[in-house]
Amino acid sequence: MAQPTHASIITIGDELLIGQVIDTNSAWMGQALNNAGIWVKRRVAVGDSWNDIWQALDEESKHADIILITGGLGPTADDITKPLLCKYFGGKLVVDENVLAHIKYLFEKVFKRTPPFLDRNLKQAEVPDVCTVLHNANGTAPGMWFEKEGKVYVSMPGVPVEMKGLMTDLVLPRLQRHFTMSAIVSRTLLTFGIGESFLAERIKDFEEALPAAIKLAYLPNYGMVRLRLTGTAAAASTITPEIDKQFEALKKLLPDVMVTDKDEPMEKVLGELLLAKKKTMATAESCTGGYIAHRITAHAGSSEYFRGSIVSYANDVKETLLDVPHEYFTTVGAVSEEVVRDMIKGVLREIKTDYAIAVSGIMGPGGATPEKPVGMVWVAVGNKEEITTQLFNFRFDRARNIEMTAMNALNLLRKFIIEH
Amino acid sequence: MAQPTHASIITIGDELLIGQVIDTNSAWMGQALNNAGIWVKRRVAVGDSWNDIWQALDEESKHADIILITGGLGPTADDITKPLLCKYFGGKLVVDENVLAHIKYLFEKVFKRTPPFLDRNLKQAEVPDVCTVLHNANGTAPGMWFEKEGKVYVSMPGVPVEMKGLMTDLVLPRLQRHFTMSAIVSRTLLTFGIGESFLAERIKDFEEALPAAIKLAYLPNYGMVRLRLTGTAAAASTITPEIDKQFEALKKLLPDVMVTDKDEPMEKVLGELLLAKKKTMATAESCTGGYIAHRITAHAGSSEYFRGSIVSYANDVKETLLDVPHEYFTTVGAVSEEVVRDMIKGVLREIKTDYAIAVSGIMGPGGATPEKPVGMVWVAVGNKEEITTQLFNFRFDRARNIEMTAMNALNLLRKFIIEH
Repeated sequence: MAQPTHASIITIGDELLIGQVIDTNSAWMGQALNNAGIWVKRRVAVGDSWNDIWQALDEESKHADIILITGGLGPTADDITKPLLCKYFGGKLVVDENVLAHIKYLFEKVFKRTPPFLDRNLKQAEVPDVCTVLHNANGTAPGMWFEKEGKVYVSMPGVPVEMKGLMTDLVLPRLQRHFTMSAIVSRTLLTFGIGESFLAERIKDFEEALPAAIKLAYLPNYGMVRLRLTGTAAAASTITPEIDKQFEALKKLLPDVMVTDKDEPMEKVLGELLLAKKKTMATAESCTGGYIAHRITAHAGSSEYFRGSIVSYANDVKETLLDVPHEYFTTVGAVSEEVVRDMIKGVLREIKTDYAIAVSGIMGPGGATPEKPVGMVWVAVGNKEEITTQLFNFRFDRARNIEMTAMNALNLLRKFIIEH
Repeated sequence: MAQPTHASIITIGDELLIGQVIDTNSAWMGQALNNAGIWVKRRVAVGDSWNDIWQALDEESKHADIILITGGLGPTADDITKPLLCKYFGGKLVVDENVLAHIKYLFEKVFKRTPPFLDRNLKQAEVPDVCTVLHNANGTAPGMWFEKEGKVYVSMPGVPVEMKGLMTDLVLPRLQRHFTMSAIVSRTLLTFGIGESFLAERIKDFEEALPAAIKLAYLPNYGMVRLRLTGTAAAASTITPEIDKQFEALKKLLPDVMVTDKDEPMEKVLGELLLAKKKTMATAESCTGGYIAHRITAHAGSSEYFRGSIVSYANDVKETLLDVPHEYFTTVGAVSEEVVRDMIKGVLREIKTDYAIAVSGIMGPGGATPEKPVGMVWVAVGNKEEITTQLFNFRFDRARNIEMTAMNALNLLRKFIIEH
């Protein structure tokens, strides 16, 4: 089996170690590198400490051919990365005239700042004279490309939009020219509503019979399990037919629990289904507080099938906007099949869509009663003719209960549309 | 300056390297360890590879006193961590009767699975005979505590709720008994609407005069910059008075841009303000699609001040539910001051709250016109008597435009409430 080119990602910043910031950059970089045929072997986060950054560079040089560094390039005094890189690669800091002109342009014309330019910002235009400067179209700190003993090191700012722009426009194309890449080909399918061990039991024989060049991974998350087949070869064309053959065989084993054979989220699958059928939807949300609507509208083009939502967090909003009868709140209670049924009817009437989702539940940690514990949720999906309801009992914390409610509601509507 | 006890976090799983999962565990662990007086020196992610995991254990043993390992403990064949740990610490795998009983209990009574227990699950009850087993109340895979050459190694499952339960109930208390901890004391304040370099310029003299034991960090994120002072000492009592003194001095330098002197998000600050004044709010969201409502309702107790939202994604929903005049859509357009003003009036009338937020804009990548580019957003906040509007022009991708819109809208309402 051909070995892919190996990369290490070094992320710099105390804020990552202390947990004040969640590292979303590394996931994005992992996907982008993987698609380009580069295998991320390790990811390391270190603090704003000279010794720790220096050691990380030394160590990751032993593990990988490509070392990508993000963070530590801001204009403030706690950033030591640039002088360190300068010393590590044996250069000296010089002002780059192109970078300086770009920073001045951004400050004067784009940010329209007063005062437009500070002495402190002059330092931002300095780069080690031993690097190739990579133009950062989205910010002030440029990317820096170093080469040493056959390895490539690229330093980029940690601001996601700046890192992504640099990676897409400059870093990935340059890496692909610099190295002879082996190909990594993967296929992913999404299952819902079956546990990891039961899934493993069902596809045990398939897994054991897989050729050595193809690896199966289980990626569980919020009631879903992604199954990913990955193969590595000198060229994509040598491994793709075998991967595709195995992937088709895997799909045939899981017709009842497979949501999609693409690597995309549940709400995207639902959206594509609605688009294909030229139908629209809305949501009436109590306990999820707008999260289902947010998940759907996070995707460009969702206005083609999503029309709106009534977030009826307070009970009397369920009454006035969705026409849920007042007496329900003293008889069956807000978390009941009756209420979510009427929420569906109300939102279909008010927002005039083909389909709707309604949810009402107790997300915790407060609000529970002996009869209605934290994690109890009623979900309804339907259209004007028919409504399907389901009761869930999740056992998690607030954030995860909200996530599980949303994912199950989206899946219920997906199944409802397929069946109707 | 006293040296804190150092920890390294090793996260295991190809899914992290390939970017299919965002690592939220490490941030949570970083916060929890920091609060317990343990400094996270490094975080490393490696794939499901015997050699890579083994090397990571060797290397991190050189960097830290405590090595925390998450992931790689699932019931499926791609998990090799448990046999590896067994070999690394020189033990053999034995079935732990307590773990077995707990797994059977979960499968039969809690998950209510049919068939209740598979042979494959028996392996989940195996542990190396050289570890102390830590009971996992939230799942099947137990925590495992190893000691070797004065260092502590703890292996935990990667499922967030299971890792958090183990850390809080067992791992942190045991670590605090095992090591003599130095104290890490930090204070964080949140600023909004001022760039990192301008902030640095304003507090330059303060920063230069800080005592050596106290460190200042800038943590920028979506229009906000967190400023964090951190001090380390043998005991919290020796550093706390100095930290508090410096923190008060810092606050006095930034009265106009400081949102809060606690480490909490914008929507929490707004919620506490509403609670204190016993007032309520609602949102009318077009381009944010329910995200503002979600951010608010992600916090327990938000039902005390948040009553609901009308997500009017389609224009005719703005007409029918919020009474925005139809002619606006052909004259000034949906993204206009007139429309967000009427959305505020509409939602105050429909949901009956003291205050409201309304937003309408173009989040991209589609939907732009020459006059209304991607990132153009009108935001309104107000009450029955008065409405304040502001036009924004963000320059980012869809996700970041949604985030920036939400943060600015929440901050505008916060300022409006303080001023009214």
